[in-house]
Amino acid sequence: MIILGVDPGLTRCGVGVIEAGASRRLSFIHVDVVRSDPHASQDLRLLAIYDGLAGKLDRFAPDAVSIERVFAQSNRNTVLGTAQAAGLAMLAAAQRGIPVALHTPTEAKLAITGNGQAHKIQVERMVMRFLNLNARPTPPDAADALALAICHALRPAGALQGGEREEHLTEAQREWAKAAQKAAHAHSVDRGM
Amino acid sequence: MIILGVDPGLTRCGVGVIEAGASRRLSFIHVDVVRSDPHASQDLRLLAIYDGLAGKLDRFAPDAVSIERVFAQSNRNTVLGTAQAAGLAMLAAAQRGIPVALHTPTEAKLAITGNGQAHKIQVERMVMRFLNLNARPTPPDAADALALAICHALRPAGALQGGEREEHLTEAQREWAKAAQKAAHAHSVDRGM
Repeated sequence: MIILGVDPGLTRCGVGVIEAGASRRLSFIHVDVVRSDPHASQDLRLLAIYDGLAGKLDRFAPDAVSIERVFAQSNRNTVLGTAQAAGLAMLAAAQRGIPVALHTPTEAKLAITGNGQAHKIQVERMVMRFLNLNARPTPPDAADALALAICHALRPAGALQGGEREEHLTEAQREWAKAAQKAAHAHSVDRGM
Repeated sequence: MIILGVDPGLTRCGVGVIEAGASRRLSFIHVDVVRSDPHASQDLRLLAIYDGLAGKLDRFAPDAVSIERVFAQSNRNTVLGTAQAAGLAMLAAAQRGIPVALHTPTEAKLAITGNGQAHKIQVERMVMRFLNLNARPTPPDAADALALAICHALRPAGALQGGEREEHLTEAQREWAKAAQKAAHAHSVDRGM
């Protein structure tokens, strides 16, 4: 199963591609950052990001796309551009019939390090370990896109279907399910329009 | 000149099309709302909105697209979906080489009624007058998309190029230019990423 992770951004949009084999054995395929010119008009920037992401989807033909979930509560000035880039990634996947999963940063950190509050360097170290990388992925900020892909590969079987009974989960899986439920709730509030 | 206005939204995305002739004589061409199923997944909703907007652009081949500018400061739960719908409208226009203009609600109200704080009903009444409509545009919320198209048609010649000297503007145009400058400033802050 090929999974393509997207760390959305209007200036820099991270893309990480992995393969998840038998027994959740993971291997590295590709990492890159799709960029847009900050001095270009917003419509041309969105076009550049969309074209870049669509090109990656066509090249790697993933079975799933894992995108960081963006929250309105975020105080960053960039939140709208980030949401728009995430929207373009969802659009490009939907146009190709590729299933989309949204994961929060907390879910990704929890899945990869066992700690939802893990520091960036810990996440990066575990990304390297999971993917048997000898060097840090470059560009450095692309590690987050790989982390999102790994997070999706490691998700508890019942996490997205909501079908697994809680007593069958390990403690880490329970934590993960809790974070996922919380995110799903926030999402449904966000969708209440 | 054909202008297509977009009042962005993930559930309902207003589209209004007008023609601006000589002496800024305006005529009504089309009004509609592009919808997505609130119960569908977000990627499929974005795909529905994108396909709907792209269909309108192909059908009316506008010379310009006028989209409501979305602000991060907005407290609405829907702000991210609104920003994403606006992003899709920008993408669809950019893919067709159609120039995009962003206008704030204040700019649109000011351009149409002379009052940036005008009530919805006043805006609707002026939309009807500008376009010689005998009845309120339906669906009712689509009037905002027509207002955005009219706003773009009525903009002071120098407003987008920043080339017109201020003493040549009428008072309403000066107000308009101030609002546009303020919005451009907010925009550049928003782009500082």
